[in-house]
Amino acid sequence: MPEIAYVNGAYLPLAEARVSILDRGFLFADGVYEVAAVIGGRLIDNEAHLSRLEKSLRELRIESPLPIQTIADVEAELVARNELNEGLVYLQITRGAAGDRDFGFPSGATPTFIAFATKKNILASSAAETGVKVLTVPDMRWARRDIKAVALLAQVLAKQAALDADCQEAWMVDDDGYVTEGSSSTAFILTKSDTLVTRQNSTAILPGCTRKAVQSLAAREGLTLEDRSFSVTEAYEAKEAFLTSASNLVLPVVSIDGRPIGSGAPGARSRLLRALYIEWAMNPGAAR
Amino acid sequence: MPEIAYVNGAYLPLAEARVSILDRGFLFADGVYEVAAVIGGRLIDNEAHLSRLEKSLRELRIESPLPIQTIADVEAELVARNELNEGLVYLQITRGAAGDRDFGFPSGATPTFIAFATKKNILASSAAETGVKVLTVPDMRWARRDIKAVALLAQVLAKQAALDADCQEAWMVDDDGYVTEGSSSTAFILTKSDTLVTRQNSTAILPGCTRKAVQSLAAREGLTLEDRSFSVTEAYEAKEAFLTSASNLVLPVVSIDGRPIGSGAPGARSRLLRALYIEWAMNPGAAR
Repeated sequence: MPEIAYVNGAYLPLAEARVSILDRGFLFADGVYEVAAVIGGRLIDNEAHLSRLEKSLRELRIESPLPIQTIADVEAELVARNELNEGLVYLQITRGAAGDRDFGFPSGATPTFIAFATKKNILASSAAETGVKVLTVPDMRWARRDIKAVALLAQVLAKQAALDADCQEAWMVDDDGYVTEGSSSTAFILTKSDTLVTRQNSTAILPGCTRKAVQSLAAREGLTLEDRSFSVTEAYEAKEAFLTSASNLVLPVVSIDGRPIGSGAPGARSRLLRALYIEWAMNPGAAR
Repeated sequence: MPEIAYVNGAYLPLAEARVSILDRGFLFADGVYEVAAVIGGRLIDNEAHLSRLEKSLRELRIESPLPIQTIADVEAELVARNELNEGLVYLQITRGAAGDRDFGFPSGATPTFIAFATKKNILASSAAETGVKVLTVPDMRWARRDIKAVALLAQVLAKQAALDADCQEAWMVDDDGYVTEGSSSTAFILTKSDTLVTRQNSTAILPGCTRKAVQSLAAREGLTLEDRSFSVTEAYEAKEAFLTSASNLVLPVVSIDGRPIGSGAPGARSRLLRALYIEWAMNPGAAR
């Protein structure tokens, strides 16, 4: 079965899914995106993702080409057509293709909406077993990291720097020495006094959907939460560390810049939060 | 005659010129570009543009899909096929389309190379007659502005802010109050003591090709040149101001944030440098 994608109203094989070279997503990174996990054929926490999508569109003054409920319907249709049990649904909306290339917003261009689905093991994860190694890198991104825009080149370079150093994720660090977030995930540490710390939401980071759900679950477990900046040094000395993202749920971090975190094995709280998140994701009826 | 574009080896009508939705230029802004002016059917200063293209590719570790001379041949072929006397040739190289979406560099993906030509009046310009109005805005871009990458969302927003304020260009200003450059041009001021000032090259700005040519012409005219940062306040008090870019050559700036520059009309040196640049561009044999 070929993978089926969606492009501006049409369902078609992914190999034939194309956009104009004049699309502003391609020429200017003038677009936004979302990724949601699928488990058991169901989109996880999708209301939060679509709500963030609306915010991203609003910030960039891109009009959604479809009502949000219709976008959700397209996602569900992609899950069905691809017989997707476990994996990801990716969607992207750009300001569309104008007749020419001008930096300013074009008048009369229709936004582009594309989506595709990818099979991926979400629950069974070797990275969850072994934990991931993190490399810290300078945060080279622009000033509006709260917008989930496709201008991701800095994140690409950050991730590649991590891979080059035999790590699996990069934690980006601002000039002041404080961690912002991962190249494609939220960064958490658990302090020696069992406080769960992640950076406060601001224009400096993306407000993570999985982050928010995990924080709720952690609070229900009685963990103390602090939304504040933490330094690389504080991260080195953490009892545990982990990352959250829609596609990886919760993954323990076992080392940062080659320094083992805690015992150097996945921490108990990190593993527990992963299990609790999966339980919550698979039982949509349960309250957060 | 339909406009003819180039996509990965094929010449085809622009309306049919498409790339995969998995292209990393579309998903990650993982690509670079160049724009060169065409006057009298000839690409202007193209060696400088292609040399900068090579540098951008090297910085991002993208292998050029074609030798640089072949890229120049494609550009010339587009000029010929589009019977382009005056206008622009745009080219973009991305890291290509991998089978899936991962932030790290894919192995085995072939870079994408697209190009198209656009008719545009380059020599006759009403903006050159009237001058342009500039709005200053915060520079929200990433840390590697010396790479001519397609991650242009901050520039798009800057330009749109200028258009919203009835201006034609935005000059971006770093937190320290110093101008970096225009959203799609280099920023110059002429001080009251007839010194031509533009920001020194660094990772904070793109090294402009037209900027460099104009500086050479200005030096030949006996103007004193200074490559240094200048503040918004210094710009307000300048005798003249202008911008340079491949597509607009040299354009006088007549106001910044509503404050008239000099007499509020295009300055004599700005007009002279535009004329000298055009003369140089149309007489390729002449030494810079």
